[in-house]
Amino acid sequence: MPHTSARDRIRLASLREKIVSAEEAASHIHDGMVVGMSGFTRAGEAKAVPLALAARARTHPLKISLITGASLGNDLDKQLAEAHVLARRMPFQSDPALRRAINAGEVMFVDQHLSETVEHLRTRQLGPIDVAVVEAVGITADGGIIPTTSVGNSASFAILAEKVIVELNVSQPLALEGLHDIYIPTRRPFREPIPVVGPDSRVGLPFIPVPPEKIAAIVITDRGDSPSNAMPADAETAAIAGHLMGFLEGEVAAGRLTERLLPLQAGIGTIANAVMMGFIDSPFRDLTMYSEVLQDSTFDLFDAGKLNFASGSSITLSQPKAEAVMADITRYKPRLVLRPQEVSNHPEIIRRLGIIAINTALEFDIYGNVNSTHVNGTHMMNGIGGSGDFARNAYLSVFVTKSTAKGGALSSVVPMASHVDHTEHDVDVVVTEIGLADLRELAPRERAREIIANCVHPLYREALSDYVERATARGGHTPHILEEALSWHIRARDGGRMVEPLHLAATA
Amino acid sequence: MPHTSARDRIRLASLREKIVSAEEAASHIHDGMVVGMSGFTRAGEAKAVPLALAARARTHPLKISLITGASLGNDLDKQLAEAHVLARRMPFQSDPALRRAINAGEVMFVDQHLSETVEHLRTRQLGPIDVAVVEAVGITADGGIIPTTSVGNSASFAILAEKVIVELNVSQPLALEGLHDIYIPTRRPFREPIPVVGPDSRVGLPFIPVPPEKIAAIVITDRGDSPSNAMPADAETAAIAGHLMGFLEGEVAAGRLTERLLPLQAGIGTIANAVMMGFIDSPFRDLTMYSEVLQDSTFDLFDAGKLNFASGSSITLSQPKAEAVMADITRYKPRLVLRPQEVSNHPEIIRRLGIIAINTALEFDIYGNVNSTHVNGTHMMNGIGGSGDFARNAYLSVFVTKSTAKGGALSSVVPMASHVDHTEHDVDVVVTEIGLADLRELAPRERAREIIANCVHPLYREALSDYVERATARGGHTPHILEEALSWHIRARDGGRMVEPLHLAATA
Repeated sequence: MPHTSARDRIRLASLREKIVSAEEAASHIHDGMVVGMSGFTRAGEAKAVPLALAARARTHPLKISLITGASLGNDLDKQLAEAHVLARRMPFQSDPALRRAINAGEVMFVDQHLSETVEHLRTRQLGPIDVAVVEAVGITADGGIIPTTSVGNSASFAILAEKVIVELNVSQPLALEGLHDIYIPTRRPFREPIPVVGPDSRVGLPFIPVPPEKIAAIVITDRGDSPSNAMPADAETAAIAGHLMGFLEGEVAAGRLTERLLPLQAGIGTIANAVMMGFIDSPFRDLTMYSEVLQDSTFDLFDAGKLNFASGSSITLSQPKAEAVMADITRYKPRLVLRPQEVSNHPEIIRRLGIIAINTALEFDIYGNVNSTHVNGTHMMNGIGGSGDFARNAYLSVFVTKSTAKGGALSSVVPMASHVDHTEHDVDVVVTEIGLADLRELAPRERAREIIANCVHPLYREALSDYVERATARGGHTPHILEEALSWHIRARDGGRMVEPLHLAATA
Repeated sequence: MPHTSARDRIRLASLREKIVSAEEAASHIHDGMVVGMSGFTRAGEAKAVPLALAARARTHPLKISLITGASLGNDLDKQLAEAHVLARRMPFQSDPALRRAINAGEVMFVDQHLSETVEHLRTRQLGPIDVAVVEAVGITADGGIIPTTSVGNSASFAILAEKVIVELNVSQPLALEGLHDIYIPTRRPFREPIPVVGPDSRVGLPFIPVPPEKIAAIVITDRGDSPSNAMPADAETAAIAGHLMGFLEGEVAAGRLTERLLPLQAGIGTIANAVMMGFIDSPFRDLTMYSEVLQDSTFDLFDAGKLNFASGSSITLSQPKAEAVMADITRYKPRLVLRPQEVSNHPEIIRRLGIIAINTALEFDIYGNVNSTHVNGTHMMNGIGGSGDFARNAYLSVFVTKSTAKGGALSSVVPMASHVDHTEHDVDVVVTEIGLADLRELAPRERAREIIANCVHPLYREALSDYVERATARGGHTPHILEEALSWHIRARDGGRMVEPLHLAATA
């Protein structure tokens, strides 16, 4: 009976009387409220209460502002969007139904650096939070909340909210206790340095400290996290990984890095996960990660003896990997820590540690400006997430993408990015399956040369060379022909291809 | 006789024999070298050696890579550009002759966040530095170099260079000694937290420590810094200041700030300086600055009793203000500190202190993306400077500009920024003389509404409203009509005006 074991997980006995149904817990949430929910990259989100809220909204409409850590699993954003519960959503999402509502202007989406949301909450530039809903594996004898597979913004949500609802998830192993390191930076202007000096620094508490009287309801659940939707590596992602490994070997040979490299960060998704897999057969050793989401590759690197320690804000795994890892979590735990996303993504720590940051671009332009979010400059995909936190402050900021999309109809390298999330100032290296361009210390005209020579699919190389040549003849630090700069996107928007077949080079 | 007093300023007597002419000192610099020179916002630059180098290059051509703190005074970049000495220049400049050479593709300009250059040098991603040329008011008994009116990157240049040339400037008061705080972050991955916890923290040495045997030459000079080229406040800059003061008063009333506000940063130039002057008649008190350049307004705020402490990397003043301040520097010194630009602009410190950052935009778009650097998307003005260091990590990131330029022919608010230096994620508030738009926690469609209603000149309001309405009808998180998005810049480039008079609203 999960219920029995659930009661045991609530060590502060007086809180056991707060156990209610999801519907009753959701009744604390009213129209117009600001609600903070756990969940980061489909891991550790509150599950029962948002579903109960969506169900209620179908007959009794209400609108809330929903703030999470990052994306939610279990189709929660879909359910909430389709029930028209979301007036406002931040700071990240990755759900197709919600995306449609955002692009239709039905949901006001605030696309925010993941490290910043709680800074805004703490200073009341955002909020206040009325209700926090946080998934937990247990509650300590003092009423502290022990998170599950993510920390995200849960700690600050719970600390800052008027009321806290705990979803006690008995399908999550209690052995996760001790994995989390809850540190909240002190208030400005009297903030102390954050004492994290390495990926393995432990500087906080293993639970979220809240006064027990703030816990308004506890809901017992047993629904698991959604598995990762990252795809397996393929020939192109393996080629991207290979180019990056070659580059890093060159950095070691040049004496700029050791074979331990520097702490690694990798964005969420197929390509970043596949790139991390590339380290398994690399000459590097004793690696560490200081990242936001830990994917399958993290545990494959542990198992391969390549990785010494991994710090993140969530663990998001495929179904088979989740089963294997959770069954053996006690063995991995000494080499793992999950932190609030404010700390995992904190500019102070990222700059201090000297992170090698690997994030995925939707497209980049010939000068190295990166679009991470907007299809054809207008339509939101997911959001900037933590990529800006890392790229801006990294030792080395790498962006990866396949050189084409939609079966070759779109080039991922374009004359001018149709939307800029990362400016050329924050982009050191770009990699596609074609090759790698090292843009460090180069002027824009030099960057264009490197990118076109190394990263562009042969189909598009001639068209881009032609563009940059004609643009350069007009002069300028960053040459462009404004009339043509977005023409590739206009054609993609209208006809699904960036360049007419007539003007494509013969395939190499 | 300056020469006598100059010798006394070299307290390590053995170094006195290193005194040579500027020409002889410049002979240490050879074709192909990487040279680091002092100088930040026209303050404290090495003067005699670069002029001697330019003179020599006119008969004996050579090319170097020149790295400075930021912009140079005394027409040095002009002299060097016109003598074709510069193959590569970073991380900032503001000279019209050099700008022409950059835009013509003759000088490879690397436009870099000011906090990052020495990180790249230290990790050998850039450099090594062959020769450092540093202006000083004196040399300590141990051979330490005491900088003049700026620190910039001088400390790391001197520490990392093979050879150091000191320009001992006897026109700079020796009383500047003690003003500087030279702290160099430790090497990664074992870096300690930087111990700066307030604008007035002193954490380093009052001189640049270098082994005396590295000092290859000392040149005695008496040429002063160029005066600031900031213009006096006018009705429009006063209106910008007024809007910002009103906004900050609202923040105090809402309990989000106290009347001491938070440490202030202001970019270089006329508008930022004028905005800072607005604090003189404000209700705020006991203010502090944690900025990069300290301009006339800093000292006016001291004199008005509004400012308690100012931290920067340089002091750049008008001629009369420079005379008054330097004559009285002993009185100001306890409330001043000059730091390496890596520290004044460090993401770690900026985020920790909670800076209110005020920087100047060249233009911004209806969604709040800021262009700080490129005219019509292609031609470099000066560079991003420190604006990205501050905007990205500030408590509050404010961008200011007049609503129009060129007598109204250009709107500073455009459909789509023709170049993006600061993405909407890093822009909280925009201000023109028309008004202020508070963009915090708003989705792009809401941002457009606020910006058009509050910041746009009445001449352009209708045209922008029309654009955004038609764009929004097409859908998207960030609506645009790609065919028209850059049309304002195309017309400006070709005909000098962004919108044909026919399509301008009747002047309000």
